[in-house]
Amino acid sequence: MTAERPGVPIPEHPGIDTVRELALRCSNWGRWGADDQLGTLNHIQPDNVAAAARLVRSGRVFSLAIPVDDRGPQTGGIGRFNPIHLMIRDGNAAVTGTMARDFYGGRDTHLGVTDDLLIIPLQSGTQWDSLAHIVFENRIYNGYPATDVGSKGAIRNDIANARERVVGRGVLLDIPRLSGRPWLEPGEAVGAAELEASVRTQGVQVGRGDIVLIRTGQIGQCRHAGSWGTYAGGPAPGIGLDAAPWLFDREVAAMATDTWGAEVRPNQTPEVLQPLHIILVAHAGLLIGEIFDLEALAEDCASDGTYEFFFAAVPLPVTGGVGSPVNPVAVK
Amino acid sequence: MTAERPGVPIPEHPGIDTVRELALRCSNWGRWGADDQLGTLNHIQPDNVAAAARLVRSGRVFSLAIPVDDRGPQTGGIGRFNPIHLMIRDGNAAVTGTMARDFYGGRDTHLGVTDDLLIIPLQSGTQWDSLAHIVFENRIYNGYPATDVGSKGAIRNDIANARERVVGRGVLLDIPRLSGRPWLEPGEAVGAAELEASVRTQGVQVGRGDIVLIRTGQIGQCRHAGSWGTYAGGPAPGIGLDAAPWLFDREVAAMATDTWGAEVRPNQTPEVLQPLHIILVAHAGLLIGEIFDLEALAEDCASDGTYEFFFAAVPLPVTGGVGSPVNPVAVK
Amino acid sequence: MTAERPGVPIPEHPGIDTVRELALRCSNWGRWGADDQLGTLNHIQPDNVAAAARLVRSGRVFSLAIPVDDRGPQTGGIGRFNPIHLMIRDGNAAVTGTMARDFYGGRDTHLGVTDDLLIIPLQSGTQWDSLAHIVFENRIYNGYPATDVGSKGAIRNDIANARERVVGRGVLLDIPRLSGRPWLEPGEAVGAAELEASVRTQGVQVGRGDIVLIRTGQIGQCRHAGSWGTYAGGPAPGIGLDAAPWLFDREVAAMATDTWGAEVRPNQTPEVLQPLHIILVAHAGLLIGEIFDLEALAEDCASDGTYEFFFAAVPLPVTGGVGSPVNPVAVK
Amino acid sequence: MTAERPGVPIPEHPGIDTVRELALRCSNWGRWGADDQLGTLNHIQPDNVAAAARLVRSGRVFSLAIPVDDRGPQTGGIGRFNPIHLMIRDGNAAVTGTMARDFYGGRDTHLGVTDDLLIIPLQSGTQWDSLAHIVFENRIYNGYPATDVGSKGAIRNDIANARERVVGRGVLLDIPRLSGRPWLEPGEAVGAAELEASVRTQGVQVGRGDIVLIRTGQIGQCRHAGSWGTYAGGPAPGIGLDAAPWLFDREVAAMATDTWGAEVRPNQTPEVLQPLHIILVAHAGLLIGEIFDLEALAEDCASDGTYEFFFAAVPLPVTGGVGSPVNPVAVK
Repeated sequence: MTAERPGVPIPEHPGIDTVRELALRCSNWGRWGADDQLGTLNHIQPDNVAAAARLVRSGRVFSLAIPVDDRGPQTGGIGRFNPIHLMIRDGNAAVTGTMARDFYGGRDTHLGVTDDLLIIPLQSGTQWDSLAHIVFENRIYNGYPATDVGSKGAIRNDIANARERVVGRGVLLDIPRLSGRPWLEPGEAVGAAELEASVRTQGVQVGRGDIVLIRTGQIGQCRHAGSWGTYAGGPAPGIGLDAAPWLFDREVAAMATDTWGAEVRPNQTPEVLQPLHIILVAHAGLLIGEIFDLEALAEDCASDGTYEFFFAAVPLPVTGGVGSPVNPVAVK
Repeated sequence: MTAERPGVPIPEHPGIDTVRELALRCSNWGRWGADDQLGTLNHIQPDNVAAAARLVRSGRVFSLAIPVDDRGPQTGGIGRFNPIHLMIRDGNAAVTGTMARDFYGGRDTHLGVTDDLLIIPLQSGTQWDSLAHIVFENRIYNGYPATDVGSKGAIRNDIANARERVVGRGVLLDIPRLSGRPWLEPGEAVGAAELEASVRTQGVQVGRGDIVLIRTGQIGQCRHAGSWGTYAGGPAPGIGLDAAPWLFDREVAAMATDTWGAEVRPNQTPEVLQPLHIILVAHAGLLIGEIFDLEALAEDCASDGTYEFFFAAVPLPVTGGVGSPVNPVAVK
Repeated sequence: MTAERPGVPIPEHPGIDTVRELALRCSNWGRWGADDQLGTLNHIQPDNVAAAARLVRSGRVFSLAIPVDDRGPQTGGIGRFNPIHLMIRDGNAAVTGTMARDFYGGRDTHLGVTDDLLIIPLQSGTQWDSLAHIVFENRIYNGYPATDVGSKGAIRNDIANARERVVGRGVLLDIPRLSGRPWLEPGEAVGAAELEASVRTQGVQVGRGDIVLIRTGQIGQCRHAGSWGTYAGGPAPGIGLDAAPWLFDREVAAMATDTWGAEVRPNQTPEVLQPLHIILVAHAGLLIGEIFDLEALAEDCASDGTYEFFFAAVPLPVTGGVGSPVNPVAVK
Repeated sequence: MTAERPGVPIPEHPGIDTVRELALRCSNWGRWGADDQLGTLNHIQPDNVAAAARLVRSGRVFSLAIPVDDRGPQTGGIGRFNPIHLMIRDGNAAVTGTMARDFYGGRDTHLGVTDDLLIIPLQSGTQWDSLAHIVFENRIYNGYPATDVGSKGAIRNDIANARERVVGRGVLLDIPRLSGRPWLEPGEAVGAAELEASVRTQGVQVGRGDIVLIRTGQIGQCRHAGSWGTYAGGPAPGIGLDAAPWLFDREVAAMATDTWGAEVRPNQTPEVLQPLHIILVAHAGLLIGEIFDLEALAEDCASDGTYEFFFAAVPLPVTGGVGSPVNPVAVK
């Protein structure tokens, strides 16, 4: 299938036309029927999952989520703040005895229970963008009208569709390691060439149904600096325009990076914000993950030379959700 | 180790003394050191994970989470309400063009982005209770003071400790199927005898490091009734007191049920509320999962006769969290 | 000015045409300029406030707000739930000493501070609807486009406009008292005739700049029943269509009732929901208050025969707010 | 009564002993009975309100609240963040027609309704601290145990007690104007001498039942700087220790300032944080208001030489609330 797709030359100063061409080039609208809401997750079939399970050797598990708390990278811009954690009842209430008064009608039942609550923007930390997250020309993935994402959330393409789908083979592409650096610098684009070099150098294949994790090292850079700095929305390394056909043609199921916005920033298209979200989410129907902490996993992959693993990163099935926090795990 | 533990006879009308004895009988305080915060998750070692991965045959995935939305079972009692989902920006804003005005300084960047937010009590739906969730006699698991769970959450035993731990072998024990019924009735206790019968009848072993899913069928009953009814806090089938040593002696890593509170309700101990939470969470240090939807998985296990599977149910790493919503997946 | 306005006969079965005619009849669009955002609050001038202050005799104060808590009337319908109150830190934390640990870096500063938080739908309790609350034919008050109320709230007509305006002369019209009843029954309309009778019987005038409080007694009925029942959105007594010109012609500044939705329910217009909101809020630019507890005030007015008073009910200046909770006070 | 109270000499380096002496000196515990929850609000009697109303001359109204939005002064420290405003449904949904789909079962009822929601720390903006806000030596005002402020809020001394009480005579004391300056500098204390000088210079009396507004000009300074800077929790001008007996002896009902924490910061007592909160809130039972924007009012008072006015600042009756946002109004 991929062979028949024409190439899209990327001009020096790409604009909306190039984005439109790439969107068309990489479109999966209608590919799995007019009522599909899964997009490239369709590439993951039980066989892929079974094969992925066979990659497990030692049984070591790596969590790729940053902590869910108020020390995350968000600054409040575009409405995204860090998660707020509040106690509904805590251990102090058990110790002072007020828990019995406040929750059990004054009766001491010998039990103390603590409860808590999160106020969490679903795009605030390690997260999946759903296929309802990106609107282009009044449409979301598969051509549904943007108005399908209304006041109460997405009636189509919500993240709950992926509830038992993001399980399969994971592949880490560690881009800075190609050049022996700890991280890419803001503004460095990861294009088809870098992805290809990474695959070749690491000796790993990327194919149908894979979940591809692209490391730029930016989280490591922030950790080294001791501050998130402008991680949220500022300049960043990230994927470039010609990565789109590369991912599309290999029929990957999902893609995630260790940056806030996945794409190289400033974007390569001055007039189009986050063009790869338009191409990959709205048109290819590809789940994009962001703020995945790939540092420990990358260390391990470098040490054993194995860049593939069993990977599970199912979202919370938030009805109508246009995203979901997730704790992705790689099992080697 | 288990052989040396004395039996605890359960009197006809057990009270706080029986709970104390069982708590002592099943205590893991100090077992993994004075600073342990993992409890029985220590039973899961990489070997267990690797062995669990080898259970995968067809690669089919089952999500065990109920939808995260405002139609869940909670009623607001003891401060638990159903999750509230709100849009920060939606597709309508893209269509009307106000998104550019409200988020991008008036500039049309060709991109529409939808964002959303959850206000979610961490115990409201399919969830893990952390080892900081239960206080007994001013202590939480491993003897830490209850005041370790303060205004800002748990400084010890929080759910983030489990961030890369709840991956391993899952075993489903389908109790109503033992007697050919669709569900147990409220008030029916699942004790050691029922667990033993289930293991024997199903032809499955339960051992060290396993995550045991105990089905009562109550979610199926609610679905059949078309209403949650008094699912949240009302009478329910569930595990009984003598299940505690059974689970403890087999060194299971975690246990989950398809009910609101895991335990049979009314509890067997009129003077002690949720006694098994005291015994298992506060003393054994066992992660308890609740509101796990086991219906589809149980159907599948019955049809293929295989009640063991690879299981992954990592929580969100909520700093200080005394629980976490989770989308558990069984892979067969 | 009012004399020149034509009458609008209310047909037996009024529909959208009648609503449109009444909206036109009572429109204040452009009356105070193309950039007005105050509507009938323009009727309140300093003179009115000064005159209102002279109504104060004994200095007794009546609060008209229902408690702000989770026992309010809302049911979650149309996204309105009762306010959720959470502690950020409480007295228990002071007593156990964890407050110093959690908030003051471990240092005992001799001070204990408690803090709290509300999650509050702005239309959930005693509240003012702003002039941005109602959209009719894609417009809000003064002809502004409905899209002025976007993802981040109202950029025109928000409730903050009223921040120093809802202070003046209040008049209570106690409708059930006209017929010696404790309350009106659901479905009973308060039209021009009832308002006129009330004014005449009570011996009070309603004029320019007044804030008119119309009592149906429904809160008293709920209190008597010991339950909110279907107060939120169910059948209710309330104002009827021909009350609109009556209020408009008298140039009242604001109007409030003791019901959930101000209007008689079921509405008199089967095809148009809440027609008076369209006429009065969207076209007349009149602030409508709801869920005002008028019971104690009404008792007092009946006992002293004085139905006018100084009234202050300024909203919180919520930027972009389409409503605001308020604690209205009448001073007699 | 005040004459019999001994003076408390303030040492050069006051410590906890001085705070205890001042607390005792200014204590109102038991003054209005063992079950009092109003504190100095008891000083406001209907006569005071009636007299205050007679102060109204021109009828001009001044709102003293800062905007309720995410651009407020809070930084997230000690759990206080700026209010978060979210739309439940907006004008875009009316325009696109999805409102009918999402809220009215698909039926076009000709009505568009916008709704919104606040997540608001009750101490985040212009606010009253309730008498449950401050704990000293395990007690709150009137000697109630601190545990009366539990997981569900204050069962005594909550802010709802003040629901019809904070109405009366307001007096503005404009301290920087004494020395012809626009504002006091951080660290400048407003003590008895400054208050006395202000009263004398302004030609205004402060007496029983008054609500005293003390201007430092800090909000003006921030506005001039174009940034809140360290307004929230940083160095600030504010009241000093010997202001406590001054306020107590005059039997004022409430006191508010235009700073984040009312007291001079750094506090005069290195070992005791916010000592005046201990003395005035926990012992005198005095309502303290913070972040009152006094700039416009001060200009007006300076221009007409009248520093007294009718004042209304009733809190929202938040059940269990330890504080409340408020929009205070002065009427001249």
